[in-house]
Amino acid sequence: MEPRKEDIKSRPIGVFDSGIGGLTVVRQIRSLMPNEDIIYLGDTARVPYGTKSQETVVRFACEDAQFLVEQGVKAIVVACNTASAWSLPALNRYFHLPICGVIVPGSEAALIVSRNKRVGVIGTASTVRSKAYDTAMKERLSNVEVFAQACPLLVPLVEEGWLSHPVTFKVLEEYLTPLVIEQIDTLILGCTHYPLLKRTILKVLKGLANRPVNLVDSAESCAAHVRRRLADLDLLSPSASVGRIFPYVTDEASRFARVARQFLGFSIGKAEQIQLKEMPAE
Amino acid sequence: MEPRKEDIKSRPIGVFDSGIGGLTVVRQIRSLMPNEDIIYLGDTARVPYGTKSQETVVRFACEDAQFLVEQGVKAIVVACNTASAWSLPALNRYFHLPICGVIVPGSEAALIVSRNKRVGVIGTASTVRSKAYDTAMKERLSNVEVFAQACPLLVPLVEEGWLSHPVTFKVLEEYLTPLVIEQIDTLILGCTHYPLLKRTILKVLKGLANRPVNLVDSAESCAAHVRRRLADLDLLSPSASVGRIFPYVTDEASRFARVARQFLGFSIGKAEQIQLKEMPAE
Repeated sequence: MEPRKEDIKSRPIGVFDSGIGGLTVVRQIRSLMPNEDIIYLGDTARVPYGTKSQETVVRFACEDAQFLVEQGVKAIVVACNTASAWSLPALNRYFHLPICGVIVPGSEAALIVSRNKRVGVIGTASTVRSKAYDTAMKERLSNVEVFAQACPLLVPLVEEGWLSHPVTFKVLEEYLTPLVIEQIDTLILGCTHYPLLKRTILKVLKGLANRPVNLVDSAESCAAHVRRRLADLDLLSPSASVGRIFPYVTDEASRFARVARQFLGFSIGKAEQIQLKEMPAE
Repeated sequence: MEPRKEDIKSRPIGVFDSGIGGLTVVRQIRSLMPNEDIIYLGDTARVPYGTKSQETVVRFACEDAQFLVEQGVKAIVVACNTASAWSLPALNRYFHLPICGVIVPGSEAALIVSRNKRVGVIGTASTVRSKAYDTAMKERLSNVEVFAQACPLLVPLVEEGWLSHPVTFKVLEEYLTPLVIEQIDTLILGCTHYPLLKRTILKVLKGLANRPVNLVDSAESCAAHVRRRLADLDLLSPSASVGRIFPYVTDEASRFARVARQFLGFSIGKAEQIQLKEMPAE
């Protein structure tokens, strides 16, 4: 028997990420749709995805989504940029529920705020290699110029807590200079960790560029996209009380709790450690 | 029927690591025992291990070792410092062949070269948290003073190719200053990636310390240890020709080939991509 629509609406939204960074997306969803329950899965045992190949990222993403589907979520949000970049076609083939990534919402937001239509993207090596942002933007505006820069040191710098350390300034200067030379007026933060560097990135850009550069936070645009999608499908929760967040991780749970607050902005309960079911390589 | 000793001698040595860094150990084994065949497994789909918990690292290490045992190796070398730090007891419980890590050889080498018995250790967060080097050294010399520093940014810097970049100097200064203040005269490079930074580390130490500091490369001491162990067990290969190296990886093989040369110092054939069998958490 098909579940009743009213029952589906009350189900949680499932969010997955390679690790803890995806909590920046949870934070935005919580802020826009405070009454939704959220199940969060961080694949902390296999983090990062951003250094890995398409094939491996797709396999991991399918295993993550499978877990969320088994928990009975009404929709899946792929908070990880690298997983969004590679795995949406496979996820949509295997799973039959609404699935939202961060690439399309970030691309649309960038096209809207950019005036000169010269957009920079920073992300992991794997995200940049995928050209997913380029493709999404060019499908919507063929003459947009997209300049992408892989920034493999930024995630380790954030995880080391060096958010405004002189080294982080130096590294950002090195990564952002080629984009500024191309006269971008908009920069997409194409990785869940980068919102924590927003203030430092703005300072570095101010030092390098002779014009203001808009920052697009994929996490923010993703949450707005998810709300529109759920509203269109009449799947928004009818609940009047504040939703709960259920966190799951694949590595030790205690280490997760310590850093979760930094990304989320508030404390959540202890995560539960689970072991994902392996899917065979395609 | 038990295999004959002569047959076992001719079998390959199995080496595993979380990724490509372990090739620095293969390089040293090849240079000391050029006639040995080597099977190398890099768990590139789940790299790094150095940010993960004991439980996860032990599970991954057992899965890695299981694969090598199935290939019929005569001994296993745990090239990864983090895996060596946590998993040797479990590996020795599950598998019945000689297993060598990098911690004991590095610790013994450091105790031998140090004069003032104040030894520094740099490694991943997980290796430092394990206190494995401290324990190994103190078991051998109770009054040795060990000062450990987690250096989570060094692996990403090596993988970015910034071996002598100004940022790398700055980061090393920050990590090494507390060790120099403790007047160490010996520093253990407790991660397979660090030998590639040897020259930069020596320069930074020269700028910071008013005395020379000995560097101990765990990869080098590990290879010497493996040779002694195989000799003691009469398991050295009788072959007179140069051995072969068979590389396996868990992520895409083509990306491995591109970086392998940097760690190994010479080119090897294409790696084969495999999927490891999952073992249940203990």
